[in-house]
Amino acid sequence: MPDSPREQTYSYLGPAGTFTEAALAQVPEAQGKTWRAVNNVGEALGDVLEGRSVAAMIAIENSVDGGVSATQDALATMTGLRIVGEYLVSVNFVLVARPGTTLADVRVINAHPVAYAQCSRWLGANLASHGHIPATSNVAAAASLFENAQADAAIAPPGITAHYDLDVLAEGIGDNPNAVTRFVLVSRTAPVPERTGSDKTSIIAELPDNKAGRLLEMLEQFATRGVNMSLIESRPIGDELGRYRFVIDLEGHILDERVADALLGLKRFSPNVIFLGSYPRADRARPTVTPRYEDAAFTDARDWLRGLIAGEPAA
Amino acid sequence: MPDSPREQTYSYLGPAGTFTEAALAQVPEAQGKTWRAVNNVGEALGDVLEGRSVAAMIAIENSVDGGVSATQDALATMTGLRIVGEYLVSVNFVLVARPGTTLADVRVINAHPVAYAQCSRWLGANLASHGHIPATSNVAAAASLFENAQADAAIAPPGITAHYDLDVLAEGIGDNPNAVTRFVLVSRTAPVPERTGSDKTSIIAELPDNKAGRLLEMLEQFATRGVNMSLIESRPIGDELGRYRFVIDLEGHILDERVADALLGLKRFSPNVIFLGSYPRADRARPTVTPRYEDAAFTDARDWLRGLIAGEPAA
Amino acid sequence: MPDSPREQTYSYLGPAGTFTEAALAQVPEAQGKTWRAVNNVGEALGDVLEGRSVAAMIAIENSVDGGVSATQDALATMTGLRIVGEYLVSVNFVLVARPGTTLADVRVINAHPVAYAQCSRWLGANLASHGHIPATSNVAAAASLFENAQADAAIAPPGITAHYDLDVLAEGIGDNPNAVTRFVLVSRTAPVPERTGSDKTSIIAELPDNKAGRLLEMLEQFATRGVNMSLIESRPIGDELGRYRFVIDLEGHILDERVADALLGLKRFSPNVIFLGSYPRADRARPTVTPRYEDAAFTDARDWLRGLIAGEPAA
Amino acid sequence: MPDSPREQTYSYLGPAGTFTEAALAQVPEAQGKTWRAVNNVGEALGDVLEGRSVAAMIAIENSVDGGVSATQDALATMTGLRIVGEYLVSVNFVLVARPGTTLADVRVINAHPVAYAQCSRWLGANLASHGHIPATSNVAAAASLFENAQADAAIAPPGITAHYDLDVLAEGIGDNPNAVTRFVLVSRTAPVPERTGSDKTSIIAELPDNKAGRLLEMLEQFATRGVNMSLIESRPIGDELGRYRFVIDLEGHILDERVADALLGLKRFSPNVIFLGSYPRADRARPTVTPRYEDAAFTDARDWLRGLIAGEPAA
Repeated sequence: MPDSPREQTYSYLGPAGTFTEAALAQVPEAQGKTWRAVNNVGEALGDVLEGRSVAAMIAIENSVDGGVSATQDALATMTGLRIVGEYLVSVNFVLVARPGTTLADVRVINAHPVAYAQCSRWLGANLASHGHIPATSNVAAAASLFENAQADAAIAPPGITAHYDLDVLAEGIGDNPNAVTRFVLVSRTAPVPERTGSDKTSIIAELPDNKAGRLLEMLEQFATRGVNMSLIESRPIGDELGRYRFVIDLEGHILDERVADALLGLKRFSPNVIFLGSYPRADRARPTVTPRYEDAAFTDARDWLRGLIAGEPAA
Repeated sequence: MPDSPREQTYSYLGPAGTFTEAALAQVPEAQGKTWRAVNNVGEALGDVLEGRSVAAMIAIENSVDGGVSATQDALATMTGLRIVGEYLVSVNFVLVARPGTTLADVRVINAHPVAYAQCSRWLGANLASHGHIPATSNVAAAASLFENAQADAAIAPPGITAHYDLDVLAEGIGDNPNAVTRFVLVSRTAPVPERTGSDKTSIIAELPDNKAGRLLEMLEQFATRGVNMSLIESRPIGDELGRYRFVIDLEGHILDERVADALLGLKRFSPNVIFLGSYPRADRARPTVTPRYEDAAFTDARDWLRGLIAGEPAA
Repeated sequence: MPDSPREQTYSYLGPAGTFTEAALAQVPEAQGKTWRAVNNVGEALGDVLEGRSVAAMIAIENSVDGGVSATQDALATMTGLRIVGEYLVSVNFVLVARPGTTLADVRVINAHPVAYAQCSRWLGANLASHGHIPATSNVAAAASLFENAQADAAIAPPGITAHYDLDVLAEGIGDNPNAVTRFVLVSRTAPVPERTGSDKTSIIAELPDNKAGRLLEMLEQFATRGVNMSLIESRPIGDELGRYRFVIDLEGHILDERVADALLGLKRFSPNVIFLGSYPRADRARPTVTPRYEDAAFTDARDWLRGLIAGEPAA
Repeated sequence: MPDSPREQTYSYLGPAGTFTEAALAQVPEAQGKTWRAVNNVGEALGDVLEGRSVAAMIAIENSVDGGVSATQDALATMTGLRIVGEYLVSVNFVLVARPGTTLADVRVINAHPVAYAQCSRWLGANLASHGHIPATSNVAAAASLFENAQADAAIAPPGITAHYDLDVLAEGIGDNPNAVTRFVLVSRTAPVPERTGSDKTSIIAELPDNKAGRLLEMLEQFATRGVNMSLIESRPIGDELGRYRFVIDLEGHILDERVADALLGLKRFSPNVIFLGSYPRADRARPTVTPRYEDAAFTDARDWLRGLIAGEPAA
């Protein structure tokens, strides 16, 4: 019996050729299924929520440019989603133009803002006074060169010339040759997957108010349980300047006792916590956990407490 | 059917006339039972452990002199005990001597060390160069005047002259007219009593090692759960200088969620935690708990976590 | 004697009519001077460092979209700059078109992608099936209406009609009527200005390593001196995933004792601290400082310490 | 010209033969001077304040019995004193008797109660049914053997046989063979001595109020400067139950930058800080200081701050 259409479709930021497509190519379950190219993160997540796709691949953090704001904000405001996987893609860029253009001709560049930011050193050195038109994707940036005349060149992935007839004006223009983008695969809310021993937990949380030391208090919820953060980003809540939510990745899985306990503490502290999911880490690294924060320490403590209340003699 | 002998006996630091006896007089269940006067804290607690008494009344803290070391150390090292009640007794003192003695004759004073400490200002002003023989109780101090000739005077409770033929050389010699001693009633380990809303929880805990900031880490276990301390005392563990255990009283009951959670955190952190009991406070004060640390916040958070793991949509 | 050319020039993200120009219009010292429109933040700051301008106005945070990454990263990596002022500009948008156009005529809209994103609700409700052509700035979007016939309307700042002969088809089309962008005026490194009592201090700092709790430790440098943060943003350092620097705004001035002391603590803790400046707050709000963190507490403590060392009797 | 009488006199808890005298014997400057035996701590410190002695040797902590309350409280309430040295004395005991007595003859023992408590295991094992007569000092216990016939033996320091013609019935009868008492030499307030690299700083501090977490806040003043505590004891202030002052020993000298900075922070935090002195440690151990808390880190940070304020380019 075949899957339903929804089971057969994965959404990603298209068109074909984007780094997001390269991330989706890493997902075994997506092989042989329909890949649906969409225009932005909101559309990709909408596909999942409205049943057009079983999951969506979206960029969440870049080693050079940081958290992808649109993704973080969409995950903070759309309910009913879960991150189920994490994928890393090496990122590099070329500067491309319509055939016949030279570097000296370039005054306006079309580029996705994240790609643009990652080439800022090269641009500062080689095209100091250029203008920038932001594009919706790295591939769209290149495609735009044929659609309107406003931009003279585009920043694109190296493979772009397989899809478009373009001249490469410069290669390897990214500031960091080791740049990597982190993608997540997002499904509808579902039971959490089993632990692999190399997991990550993503949350978004707000502070109760703006009093001094509140962020410190929130971080103590993790520190007192030995839970390490691999990411913390602030994002404006959007209602007024100075109000932030925090996008946080924790080392470990919600079924790890120390993570569960930290989440309980966070839930009590924060007026708004969003659990985005526990999922295997792309790098397969296993966190080092000191004995006092291992599962056994938590179950032992609960047994001890139960014995105290019951008045068992050993207590 | 009569109680067993053990059910009928309460031990206290005697002899009759001590402040400890005054504390025991506050216990309704002890009325009409046998009161057994003993010589020191270890003997009183031994009575309980070995079944000679149902409970023992012992002094644990004085508003002037601080924690009673012998009591704290006995509770830290004898297992199988529970504090089940707390009692306050106002404390004042007289200086007494054998009939015919004048203040000018006094060179050596017999006094329980706690009483002696509480009269230090008066002694400094009136008997600057006296010697001191420590006694095992305030009443024993007075009684000793008849047993050997070493001391010329004794520090005793005001009611002592009802028991002994003594001259009062000075009255109200305590440094603090509001001095109070705190006593606890100790039974064998038993199920914890119900919450009254005005409870105290006593524990003793050691630090995992001597690294800088360890005490800070331990106290964060309480602070991150909104649990206030009404007492913290360090006591040497006794094996080497610089190693301490901490005697701590917490506001609240082990069945209060915030206290239970703090105890779990403490258990994971500390290599040795002794739970001494949750019991009604003598002063009947009710702690103010912010909503984020009330029971409902804990049960709500657990429900939320369960829903997250199950993949419920509202999460 | 006239000012040097550098003294007479201010750089800003142009062209005329942008919100950045509106921020520059708030600067009294800039009145009657040359305003130099540039294409990006790097160029604006380059003008300052290379002596073409006395100062540059750049956007640093938007209440809807968050920290301006390009600005934060430029300030983190270009040395020799100081923030000397802060300015707020209400961000709102109008839909403009060539004279004679009606809302019903609009099929394609030219807009800077950030402005476009901020008007998405209005566009969804009123022009559900429009097309979008991205522009390099809000003013360029309007200007484009006269340069090519591809777009029928543009999203622009309200003041655009002072520069161009355009009809306003709709006003207040931004999703958030309270949206504000925060700008800073940046000069070369110079002595800090005097305190006004309503000041802000901006810094960028790295953590010493990735050990658990390091961010907590850094924030304690502020908390233990009663210094409140009005902004904290993480930005990837860029060399590898998981390494961040933190962009932080503190309430107060480097000449406030508590801020100076927190900066000393931060300098000792962090392997890399960049001081961006102390400057008057745009909102003129005065922080509430508890007495223990006021200047007098610091000078009193120093006097006390000096007395202790000298062996003065009062100590 | 000879010293003044005050310069020639040292007070100590006598009589000759006590452990306190053994501590004083470790002080080179006290050799050949007058040693004045007094009866209690208050008298010893009074000698210093009133000019009868240049310094007094007093016990401050015992490895078995903890802080000496009388000493801690005297130092907290008498102003004008400074600890100038620390000395350790191994505490061990012998059982002595009049010549010709054998262990089998011993029925009643004269002993200072603290010494008596420290020998309880040996006594239980070897003289299970003895009686006890308390003495004012360990030496007085031995001396009493010649004064009245009530006791058959006494517990005394090992050196007692140099002063009295006694037989040693048993050696090393203390329960803890490593027991040590810590003594301090106290003078009038004077300039602090130079650093030796192996120093200790003693303070007493009160909390600003009884709010939850206040002790935590106080300890953070030390932790954020990398200052380790070798002792913390709470002592009741004495005015009401639940109000404590804290007796704290810090590793390091007031002239160490990190200690000075922590003291400044403590002074701002606490309504009442008493500096008892910085002095060489008895054990000559040198604390390990991480580079970020070494003096150079503090002076570098101050230079950096000064440069920032002046607008120096390197900032």
